[in-house]
Amino acid sequence: MKYALPILSLMALAACQTATITAPEPAPAAQQPAAVSAPEGRPLTAGQWLFGSAEAQIMMAQSWNRIAAYAEAGAAARPEYSVILAPGATAEAPEFLACGEKPLAAVFDVDETLIWNLGSAGAFRRMGIEFDPEIWGEWERTGAGKAVAIPGALEGVERIRKAGVEIILNTNREAANVAGNIETIREAGFGDYVHGETLFLKGDTPGGSAKDGRRYAISENYCVIALVGDQLGDIADIFNDKSLSPAARRDLAAAPAFDRLWDDGWFILPNPTYGPFEGSSMEEIFPPETYWAPASKE
Amino acid sequence: MKYALPILSLMALAACQTATITAPEPAPAAQQPAAVSAPEGRPLTAGQWLFGSAEAQIMMAQSWNRIAAYAEAGAAARPEYSVILAPGATAEAPEFLACGEKPLAAVFDVDETLIWNLGSAGAFRRMGIEFDPEIWGEWERTGAGKAVAIPGALEGVERIRKAGVEIILNTNREAANVAGNIETIREAGFGDYVHGETLFLKGDTPGGSAKDGRRYAISENYCVIALVGDQLGDIADIFNDKSLSPAARRDLAAAPAFDRLWDDGWFILPNPTYGPFEGSSMEEIFPPETYWAPASKE
Repeated sequence: MKYALPILSLMALAACQTATITAPEPAPAAQQPAAVSAPEGRPLTAGQWLFGSAEAQIMMAQSWNRIAAYAEAGAAARPEYSVILAPGATAEAPEFLACGEKPLAAVFDVDETLIWNLGSAGAFRRMGIEFDPEIWGEWERTGAGKAVAIPGALEGVERIRKAGVEIILNTNREAANVAGNIETIREAGFGDYVHGETLFLKGDTPGGSAKDGRRYAISENYCVIALVGDQLGDIADIFNDKSLSPAARRDLAAAPAFDRLWDDGWFILPNPTYGPFEGSSMEEIFPPETYWAPASKE
Repeated sequence: MKYALPILSLMALAACQTATITAPEPAPAAQQPAAVSAPEGRPLTAGQWLFGSAEAQIMMAQSWNRIAAYAEAGAAARPEYSVILAPGATAEAPEFLACGEKPLAAVFDVDETLIWNLGSAGAFRRMGIEFDPEIWGEWERTGAGKAVAIPGALEGVERIRKAGVEIILNTNREAANVAGNIETIREAGFGDYVHGETLFLKGDTPGGSAKDGRRYAISENYCVIALVGDQLGDIADIFNDKSLSPAARRDLAAAPAFDRLWDDGWFILPNPTYGPFEGSSMEEIFPPETYWAPASKE
């Protein structure tokens, strides 16, 4: 097989395998779009891994185990400082908000942290698009019951509550869609949350999707012992500085002042399906010093 | 929008009938894939996350921290049983190989566990294909220096060695490419491995890519206290039974007899870019009870 098939032939053949396997019947016009009509007939690989694989389920359940154990230990040994970076703190001058006598809380992102948005992810895939803000807004308003709890999350939240640590959600779902958002969280099994008390949404404080303002608001009433999310913006806005290259962002996350907090107050869950890392170039992901090409195909 | 996709699917099917009947012509040399023309100019999202994001780097470094700490503790408290499932063991009748007085070892997969294959991943992406076994074979033979150590792996391996635990690699790289494979591992910084002693390759025992045979061979000389990989086949072949649906595979991994071992002898690192989970259908990943469609686009 010295000479490869032309790319298009390979792609067509690959598509054929999929199409032949799924072999959808033509849908009558009155029916809902058949679930087999995704552009290539299957979820994207990242979605197959995250939402469907035993491998990702294990990582999720174990992450939630560790978060719960950490919160239980934190509740027993009351800390002097929260894990929320103080305004103006940097890797060189890290400062954290003081706890005083405030009650303890753990702060969680919602999407792809507490719940998997299977309803909207499936819809986007069937439509052959990655994301549409208008459709996402409708999903916030009407998706209750079609998002599911992440493996281990319900048990983890229950353990943290039992340890006497308040569960507070800080999400970039829109304040304008508060009713649908609360219902979506409830229908996924997490109980009721109160806007402005245990639920903070985009629009609650200035800064748009930046979450530091909401973290400061939460800190007025709570000592936050754990921050949990699928993106570094769930930890501190400093990591989402648009001027950071992927490599600079990795270096900042690994700076000594911050490195000691991962899995020890700051927790990241895997989400390879979307995030602030998107937009990386070929050179950023496959740097020149790793360039390789097969001689057999040249 | 609603009806466009089924039509596209039908067109794909029509194209397939032709493609599967007509043998593709060999491509003229001038039409070979250009090395710089990634289909959409960027790595796939899963690759951007895994190889480039601070989020994945943190998960990797923390996973390796935990693996090293576990091995250090295991070396101090010598176990009676290894974490390798005995032949014929099941979730209902779990049995593990006895350790006797054998020296301790930790067994690792190589690809996407010790090293990231940036050279081949970049090449596949530039060619617009997901995988080609012929090219992969050439990568095994000639890729040394173009694969890199995963964040945290070098430090983790060093700690485990210092604890007196032998590092043994069990990979589905081919025995026929042993020289290139050893050099790739060495060039990534992991030192020298000896085929049949500290390095086990596909072809060393019957069973093809199934790794149980090699795990049994390793167990003749070692008490294995940790198994580490990016896929459940790195833990036990029972999880790769082809008859398991994604849901059944998740259930098996979460069976009580196995569930207690995750992060406690059995360790999984994230790899959403390829794996045994691939091939899941839309219904398996987005089950009917989560079906949702936006009214605004109908």
